[in-house]
Amino acid sequence: MNNVANKQSRNLALKSADGVWHNLRLADGLARPDVAVPVGATASVVVQGGSVRWVGPDASLPADCAGLPRHDGAGLLATPGLVDCHTHLVYGGQRANEFAMRLAGASYEEVARAGGGIVSSVRATRAASEDELFAAALPRLHSLLDEGVCAIEIKSGYGLALEHEAKQLRVARRLGRELGVTVRTTFLGAHALPPEYAGRSQDYIDLICREMLPALHAEGLVDAVDVFCERIAFSLAETEQVFAAAARLRLPVKLHAEQLSDMQGAQLAARYGALSCDHIEHLSEDGVAAMARAGTVAVLLPGAFYTLRDTQLPPIGALRAAGVPMAVATDHNPGTSPALSLLLMANMACTLFRLTVPEALAGITTHAARALGLQDTHGLLASGRPANFVLWPFSDAAELAYWFGHKPAHTIVRQGRIVNPRHP
Amino acid sequence: MNNVANKQSRNLALKSADGVWHNLRLADGLARPDVAVPVGATASVVVQGGSVRWVGPDASLPADCAGLPRHDGAGLLATPGLVDCHTHLVYGGQRANEFAMRLAGASYEEVARAGGGIVSSVRATRAASEDELFAAALPRLHSLLDEGVCAIEIKSGYGLALEHEAKQLRVARRLGRELGVTVRTTFLGAHALPPEYAGRSQDYIDLICREMLPALHAEGLVDAVDVFCERIAFSLAETEQVFAAAARLRLPVKLHAEQLSDMQGAQLAARYGALSCDHIEHLSEDGVAAMARAGTVAVLLPGAFYTLRDTQLPPIGALRAAGVPMAVATDHNPGTSPALSLLLMANMACTLFRLTVPEALAGITTHAARALGLQDTHGLLASGRPANFVLWPFSDAAELAYWFGHKPAHTIVRQGRIVNPRHP
Ligand SMILES: [Zn+2]
Ligand SMILES: [Zn+2]
Repeated sequence: MNNVANKQSRNLALKSADGVWHNLRLADGLARPDVAVPVGATASVVVQGGSVRWVGPDASLPADCAGLPRHDGAGLLATPGLVDCHTHLVYGGQRANEFAMRLAGASYEEVARAGGGIVSSVRATRAASEDELFAAALPRLHSLLDEGVCAIEIKSGYGLALEHEAKQLRVARRLGRELGVTVRTTFLGAHALPPEYAGRSQDYIDLICREMLPALHAEGLVDAVDVFCERIAFSLAETEQVFAAAARLRLPVKLHAEQLSDMQGAQLAARYGALSCDHIEHLSEDGVAAMARAGTVAVLLPGAFYTLRDTQLPPIGALRAAGVPMAVATDHNPGTSPALSLLLMANMACTLFRLTVPEALAGITTHAARALGLQDTHGLLASGRPANFVLWPFSDAAELAYWFGHKPAHTIVRQGRIVNPRHP
Repeated sequence: MNNVANKQSRNLALKSADGVWHNLRLADGLARPDVAVPVGATASVVVQGGSVRWVGPDASLPADCAGLPRHDGAGLLATPGLVDCHTHLVYGGQRANEFAMRLAGASYEEVARAGGGIVSSVRATRAASEDELFAAALPRLHSLLDEGVCAIEIKSGYGLALEHEAKQLRVARRLGRELGVTVRTTFLGAHALPPEYAGRSQDYIDLICREMLPALHAEGLVDAVDVFCERIAFSLAETEQVFAAAARLRLPVKLHAEQLSDMQGAQLAARYGALSCDHIEHLSEDGVAAMARAGTVAVLLPGAFYTLRDTQLPPIGALRAAGVPMAVATDHNPGTSPALSLLLMANMACTLFRLTVPEALAGITTHAARALGLQDTHGLLASGRPANFVLWPFSDAAELAYWFGHKPAHTIVRQGRIVNPRHP
């Protein structure tokens, strides 16, 4: 996408959402009302000072809310704001040409010779200024925000050097600030070995642990630390070094785990109390058990599974049986998941991974929030939380996962403001 | 989707597109300039009286265009308007509950007992008024129009009785009229056997041929005639009876062919000079050859392939080798493809069917127009045609198929009018 898209006037009505949102229907399992809502009854959400003050049946609205401004929900379905808990949203360039070359029959070697692969994203990210990275990420983020995303994780990992990782993470913070969306930053310096460290993996891990992570943390840029643990990336021992460095700084960890093979990364991540293990197509029974014990969230990434035409399904049945919370995210990235819709990921989680609809919906809300350590503030429509919710023109919450390829949100309230111009 | 969505103010600027659109980049193969555009040069599209009058390099703009109003294309990529050549967009109800039940483990029988399956769509369509069908289809159509679709096929086939088929087709016509989009109607009375004809397939085919089709044709509601030829639907002999009836009225035919098995429908369709054979996962070499000889378009429907988790790929290599034009469509329908993005279908055609990017892009433009008999007016950016084109914030046309899950159109010109509010 070029810069023109960024200049588009978006014409958003940034109005306060304070008041009584009445005549809503609450999606099962995604709201925690203060007073139980009888089956079939409509509900109200009271917003005050940008936070949800009360949720319950229209008929039980507290008396002192009667004078507040009123927003007619018109029978729309209300859910918490969506949470995209795994993205690589900030990077330079794009890799459409590589996509086209592969389909035209080019081999990996030919793509590499033409400058493709992850190194091309590293090169473009390093070459870009913060403003350029911000402008490039903006339409991608808007695509997700237009859908009702209210919190999003953004990883570094295309800079692979202190100044460039810092640049990515600063842009992530700026996106959150300027667009009024909760952004959780994840330092993924251990995403790939930078070209200048070829053959010196341990030196790069040392750099990450001794210089990059402490410096980025000191600048307040790191909410969590992630590693790509895979034969083509970093070993289990290298992963543990990064986790230990994170632990010294009391930073939570996550892991790109068992995507292409069983590295037993999940067990390691669980020992470090990881927030999440992500991908996990090749996760073992042992790994499932370790995650269950540690309360680690399983983040499913069907967009990458789809794009890579993977056939190895994550062990959904075992995760379900063990009670491991399952989240669903876009894994937006220029190489293996140029996906720009979290609802499409919910549909793919159902269609490709056979999640049930309630599982998919918890996956893009409640469990996604948990994967970011945001379980007390996001992913559930409940009093005492910042007002992040979405109204949908649906009679059945299953429609959120059933239809695909659209942006159906009717009204979006994000950080206490009405950000969607179509509100009633 | 409920009615609330239909009331949303869409706030479209319906301005005339007349004038010189300059500083554009033309997508390879999707434009036929009047004067060749040198590599790297920007181009102009001149619109006059709602039609494209001239396409060529900025530097060669005809002298008498100098005084026309100017629209700065800002280096955006220009393509013809998209064409969705296979949809069942008009129907009552939706089947999200059936989707959810299946994922929760319900058998087909249990779904049927709960009122699911195609009969539920037939029931809901019959029960709906024209206004209700119109209102239900509106947000679905808007999702496609927002993406740059300028021509769309809409089939009947959920009424399965004269008055209800007529109702569906009248709504299709009304959508075209009120939204200013080219709609081609297809009569698909032979979609399924209506419950009241159970065990009397021939009687229903007779009804179609002798009463329904002639009456609908007399009302001007039929641009083409389609049949679902499959073991679970109508036989080859029954299909031929419908085709013969269409031929008597000089109406072109299309076919839902070889989706679940090789019925040799393609050969029959080719004998009737069919515009297209659609689905064709089980198409034989013979069928490919027949289509090539007849100039019949192969319409690929990856949304249904994806939703049904089909594993039998259409014979892309054989179609390519035989020079059969391949189109790509949403097959939007409530049972097997609740897809609301044609760009996502282009991505799926690449990812799942391994079409090249140029094939996928021709598939949603030029070849899709041919599948509707619109090859002289739609699907190519060229002088002498109604002004239907889209400007995209992309540096590479491959981005149209690479990203997925967004609505990236920057400016849409449909039927000579600027219908997208974000135009430069
Ligand atoms: Zn990732
Ligand atoms: Zn169809």
